[in-house]
Amino acid sequence: MITVALDAMGSDLGPGPLVKGAAELTLEDRDLSVLLVGDEPTLSQHLAEQRYDPSKLAVVHADGVVDMVKKPAEALDQTPNCSILTAARLVRDGEADALVSSGSTGAVILAAARTFKRLPGIRRTALAAVYPTERTHGPREDPFALMLDVGATLNCTAEDLVGFAVMGTAYSRIISDIGRPRVALLSNGSESNKGTPAIVKAHQMLVQLESVEFQGNVEGLDIPRGTVDVVVCDGFLGNVVLKMLEGVSEVVSDLAKDAYESKFVWRVGLTMLSKRLHQLRAMTDWKQYGGAPVLGFDQVVIKAHGRSNHRAIRNALIVAAKAVRRDLSGEIRRALPRPMQPTDPASPKS
Amino acid sequence: MITVALDAMGSDLGPGPLVKGAAELTLEDRDLSVLLVGDEPTLSQHLAEQRYDPSKLAVVHADGVVDMVKKPAEALDQTPNCSILTAARLVRDGEADALVSSGSTGAVILAAARTFKRLPGIRRTALAAVYPTERTHGPREDPFALMLDVGATLNCTAEDLVGFAVMGTAYSRIISDIGRPRVALLSNGSESNKGTPAIVKAHQMLVQLESVEFQGNVEGLDIPRGTVDVVVCDGFLGNVVLKMLEGVSEVVSDLAKDAYESKFVWRVGLTMLSKRLHQLRAMTDWKQYGGAPVLGFDQVVIKAHGRSNHRAIRNALIVAAKAVRRDLSGEIRRALPRPMQPTDPASPKS
Repeated sequence: MITVALDAMGSDLGPGPLVKGAAELTLEDRDLSVLLVGDEPTLSQHLAEQRYDPSKLAVVHADGVVDMVKKPAEALDQTPNCSILTAARLVRDGEADALVSSGSTGAVILAAARTFKRLPGIRRTALAAVYPTERTHGPREDPFALMLDVGATLNCTAEDLVGFAVMGTAYSRIISDIGRPRVALLSNGSESNKGTPAIVKAHQMLVQLESVEFQGNVEGLDIPRGTVDVVVCDGFLGNVVLKMLEGVSEVVSDLAKDAYESKFVWRVGLTMLSKRLHQLRAMTDWKQYGGAPVLGFDQVVIKAHGRSNHRAIRNALIVAAKAVRRDLSGEIRRALPRPMQPTDPASPKS
Repeated sequence: MITVALDAMGSDLGPGPLVKGAAELTLEDRDLSVLLVGDEPTLSQHLAEQRYDPSKLAVVHADGVVDMVKKPAEALDQTPNCSILTAARLVRDGEADALVSSGSTGAVILAAARTFKRLPGIRRTALAAVYPTERTHGPREDPFALMLDVGATLNCTAEDLVGFAVMGTAYSRIISDIGRPRVALLSNGSESNKGTPAIVKAHQMLVQLESVEFQGNVEGLDIPRGTVDVVVCDGFLGNVVLKMLEGVSEVVSDLAKDAYESKFVWRVGLTMLSKRLHQLRAMTDWKQYGGAPVLGFDQVVIKAHGRSNHRAIRNALIVAAKAVRRDLSGEIRRALPRPMQPTDPASPKS
């Protein structure tokens, strides 16, 4: 039985969708239990409205919620027993196997950094996100690719980028069942000499690395096309790119909505277009597609979107359990290049 | 009369659209003449098929075309009398007032760097591009905003970014008739402390600079929305962002085309949606919207898209003449912050 600690207080929508998502999941035939972490009276009240399997769900009390207006460090300092820190400690202490939170990204990453260890050989953590693409990926033909880092580490060395490539490969193998995920560095040209010094050096290192199916550099054009399964970049670039995709989704959605509302005959036309427009709509719906992993810690951490509905929370919990069951940390450790494996006695650099 | 030197050999489509665009322009009632620079027999042959005003158009022979496969420096070294270098020299020597080329971006920028001087106070040049936005801009309600740099200077200091903000302001005032264009830095958050050290420092400098209507930082979301008139970033980020917008346009266009071809009834629906879809289609057509200025030289340089049709070439020539007539260089010089004006005796830093 895998146990997931769910920070039940961080959502923009209140604890409702989190409690509902966890409760419904306990009724499914899965080897998975949930610790709901947060204000006990509030959570119990929400739980009273749900059907659930009490053998697979328990509430763990935590005091206070992280103040999202404040800086994460200050907010965590002021509420040392808040839900995200309490949930992280449950994982650290072996009471749970993975952490899921829909709290602010900064607070989740910082809580993990204060509670967990980094994986040996990984110097910097990465937030990975799935985003919609034209081409499909893997045996399930997912219309999503993975991008990392999208905001955890703004300025990356070549070694950091190589670490991200390894972690993205491991996550994509484990969660999307892609045997050899195609990985590329995001740069300003496909040639190996294009990009910042860190990108050029990471390119040279990745060419040598057998555990990563490295496809070289991709450009901005390749992001919406979905040329590769895993796009690697620093957190500054990834943040801008990801938010831009959200912005494009919004604009497309606005245009479609305007058209839809304007005239009945257009509505008929739009309805007819359903199959293709469904793909456009997927671009606006992907935020509901579960969680984004925070990679690089010795524990599984999934950051769910702040406005996740109960279905997205359910998916995030399942993804977290899958990552534990299939040993994401071991998969990452085995794929690191030898000089980045600190426990490797053959490497004098470590 | 403004004279524009047009590098007539660099287009991906051959000299045809360039000659046609220039020829047709001479028949309009504009105070503008064109020097067509390139292989004289070829250009004369193309000209023979066009109606034009010979008092406003002449051919200047140049030997050789830049080899696009080679690196720009090597290619220019091997063809010292090629059309782009010859055209640039005509401008330097006062035979023409501005340069327009649809050759490779690298070759155009390098030819300008080898032939022209940089504007006093500008250390690095920028390539600026218009891109489609949801909101409109300026008195003409253009559905386009300006972004710079999109590929000339990969790694920028704070002073470079401030220079770009000044140049973008000047260009937007002169070409789009926006009195006080709203300018922002592209970053990973709207707060003034967000971004790379160069962005944070540029933010502090721009807050102080009265000649720029600085709106602070914008995020990826704001790019397609069109929150500001001028988006400032380094050339690496701008290149990725701009190519991503092209990629999104392609994907939207593919989806719409698939739908259009699939079924008659869908076609009817799509036709009904014309007004709104026109905006989507604009996202795929913006490449035909004339040229992108290379800013920072003491001469006006417009880089037209490699696949510009004759109408885009005509627009690029008109834009170049407008920039000369309204004194783009003077506008930039006057808007630079004092410490960046090297001719300012009050500044010990220069």
